[in-house]
Amino acid sequence: MKKKVKLSGWVDSRRDHGKIIFIDLRDRSGLCQIVFTPKHKEVYQKANELRSEWVISIVGTVKERPKGMENPKIPLGKIEISVEELEILSEAETPPFEISEEESEEVSLEKRLNWRWIDLRMPEKQLIFKVWTIMEQAFRNYWLENKYIQIHSPKFMNAASESGAELFEVLYFDRKAYLAQSPQFYKQMAMAAGFEKIFEIGPVFRAEPSFTPRHATEYIGYDAEISFINSYQDIIKEEEKLLVAVLTKIKNEFGEEISKFYKRDLVVPKIPFPQMTMEEAKEVLKKMNVPSKKPGDISPEEEKKICEFIKKEKGHEFVFITEYPINERPFYHMRSEENPKITDGFDLLWNGIEITTGSQREHRYDILIKQAKEKGINIKSIQHYFDFFKFGCPPHGGLGIGPARMIMKIFNLDNIREATFLHRGVKRLTP
Amino acid sequence: MKKKVKLSGWVDSRRDHGKIIFIDLRDRSGLCQIVFTPKHKEVYQKANELRSEWVISIVGTVKERPKGMENPKIPLGKIEISVEELEILSEAETPPFEISEEESEEVSLEKRLNWRWIDLRMPEKQLIFKVWTIMEQAFRNYWLENKYIQIHSPKFMNAASESGAELFEVLYFDRKAYLAQSPQFYKQMAMAAGFEKIFEIGPVFRAEPSFTPRHATEYIGYDAEISFINSYQDIIKEEEKLLVAVLTKIKNEFGEEISKFYKRDLVVPKIPFPQMTMEEAKEVLKKMNVPSKKPGDISPEEEKKICEFIKKEKGHEFVFITEYPINERPFYHMRSEENPKITDGFDLLWNGIEITTGSQREHRYDILIKQAKEKGINIKSIQHYFDFFKFGCPPHGGLGIGPARMIMKIFNLDNIREATFLHRGVKRLTP
Repeated sequence: MKKKVKLSGWVDSRRDHGKIIFIDLRDRSGLCQIVFTPKHKEVYQKANELRSEWVISIVGTVKERPKGMENPKIPLGKIEISVEELEILSEAETPPFEISEEESEEVSLEKRLNWRWIDLRMPEKQLIFKVWTIMEQAFRNYWLENKYIQIHSPKFMNAASESGAELFEVLYFDRKAYLAQSPQFYKQMAMAAGFEKIFEIGPVFRAEPSFTPRHATEYIGYDAEISFINSYQDIIKEEEKLLVAVLTKIKNEFGEEISKFYKRDLVVPKIPFPQMTMEEAKEVLKKMNVPSKKPGDISPEEEKKICEFIKKEKGHEFVFITEYPINERPFYHMRSEENPKITDGFDLLWNGIEITTGSQREHRYDILIKQAKEKGINIKSIQHYFDFFKFGCPPHGGLGIGPARMIMKIFNLDNIREATFLHRGVKRLTP
Repeated sequence: MKKKVKLSGWVDSRRDHGKIIFIDLRDRSGLCQIVFTPKHKEVYQKANELRSEWVISIVGTVKERPKGMENPKIPLGKIEISVEELEILSEAETPPFEISEEESEEVSLEKRLNWRWIDLRMPEKQLIFKVWTIMEQAFRNYWLENKYIQIHSPKFMNAASESGAELFEVLYFDRKAYLAQSPQFYKQMAMAAGFEKIFEIGPVFRAEPSFTPRHATEYIGYDAEISFINSYQDIIKEEEKLLVAVLTKIKNEFGEEISKFYKRDLVVPKIPFPQMTMEEAKEVLKKMNVPSKKPGDISPEEEKKICEFIKKEKGHEFVFITEYPINERPFYHMRSEENPKITDGFDLLWNGIEITTGSQREHRYDILIKQAKEKGINIKSIQHYFDFFKFGCPPHGGLGIGPARMIMKIFNLDNIREATFLHRGVKRLTP
């Protein structure tokens, strides 16, 4: 075996044994031991300068490691590379903390976020974004196979789409604009335009002064909308199939690595997912002695408890909560024909956290206007939205999914900051 | 043949012949003739009310049309549906203009944009977004097959990434934030983090007070960045393969429809694409008697002429322009070793319009700081960016592609507003 290879990466660690220099070279596939001996004099002298986190490129010969010297902790632990050529691509100052899992746990989250690009050098952190990449692709594959059309809707709006309180204001030439809190209006416009089934992936912006482990001022939303539905249960059925397809793909491609690095055994859920009405959920919570923060809505604490209950009773990680009262939902949610005090929509909880809100939308102009007025919406400021429903608009519904929250659940992360490439919050605009 | 079907859609047009009502029902797959006869009395009476753009759902029996009554213009022109059940899903006011290509050409672009959801009901307009959907998927498929990791970088920044003049300012709690003009800094952060190859798809925001047919205040950018390159020519080679994969996919899936509706025969380009230096381009333009607006940069008029020249000389729709002078490029572009007055980057023109800018980036801290100071950049305000290069950063480069401009070229559209789901410009924030 005399195979020549070229490798590029970061100096992860260095050990000098007598006259031999051992370096663990790190690239995004993991570590590989490279060896410098005095036999190649010039290369050896240059190697003497190498320090942690320098970026180098080497050419060398692949060799089996001597018996007993294998490293079972790394995939390439049975081989090493005897270096013949060395190029130093980038020198490095001493980083603010070491690139190792043990060390990382000692460093505060804030410090790691300040130096996010150092933090992300750890292979198990890069895994999060490899999984996000194929998760997003699995969503898209499902949508493309099912003939959804993609839209990219504008993020600049002339007025609020949801509630004015969470709105970021932009200086827009000689006037003001606002950043979209969701693509809601434009998903519905696509239905009025006859697109029938659409999806959108993009950032949404929320000016909530919130410091919880599950909120951010901007985050990515996965949104879909479908026409000609019979009820919001059609949206639920679609989401079930979608999530099964996505989690199957993730489990197949990364299940082992997720289990190895995060001790999380990913489960592909069974269809149908359990459902509970808000009333049923509140009753269960009462029996569990969980204090109800607010009637008609479920607090983070209550979400956790309900999911524990469902896990125990049904062996399922997911549960749809239905029949939210109208005062907890936006004006555009359709209201139940049987009981006009509840809405035709749902939230989906996964292992204690809400990952989806969905509903059938009200597509009848007069009723929609009435509902908006009841909620104190300034009709005139968004008349163009109401106009979508004047010239023929099919019944429709849809949902919004939070991928960063899904990533939290896939990896058992307890903070959305760890699930996001670069977090943005009230106090954080850098790096 | 007695097949029962359910169909839902919009009343496109209605013709009454004696006692029979013929309706062309439109959904996103096209038109289908449905027929109401007095035989089904109740349904027939309800059908009498139907007007243009009402949304209905019907159940009926598929029949072959009588000989001589076929409509060769539509795919389902040989059949019709004899309606047995009718549900009216949404009534409609008379729309501001008819849903037909001929009519549409009479209506001003501004009016069509004001009523964009009516404008988009035309099948040939929906085709644009069906193609965009698979175009984006083809980009992603290439990137995923080649082991790129996807990132979603923040759109809120604490300072400018490119030039301050084009920056939108946001009220961000008790301070100011700015909307990202590109994901440039964060693509480079991913390189410093060891991601090696990344892509991002997302909106970018430019506060240019521009009213041209090729500019918008927000648009979608396709961005990619690669580590361990030898020169910007590696980025060019990667883009060539990428565009060939994308255009092959589009031509295979939608080539016929694009040709039928837009009279555009899509050509899959040959590799390598032609290249010209800025100096060579200016010489050719001089010979063609095209006035040079600015030394070292190419105006829209010059872009058109250069592409005409390349088309004629090389039979190619694409041309890379290289060796831009440093004063026309941002501070982070690497400068040529041989000639420090030019940059190691390129633009890609396609049939007269710039669709890509790319370059090798300067990854050496000291040189980068020097170049930034020369350009008058406020180093302190973006020190976190410069810090990316302090702790080991590999040589890297990347590019940004404008998908809306690609759509313009795929369909021969002369205005970016037609290639965008909902345009945003200086004067346009609605619908």
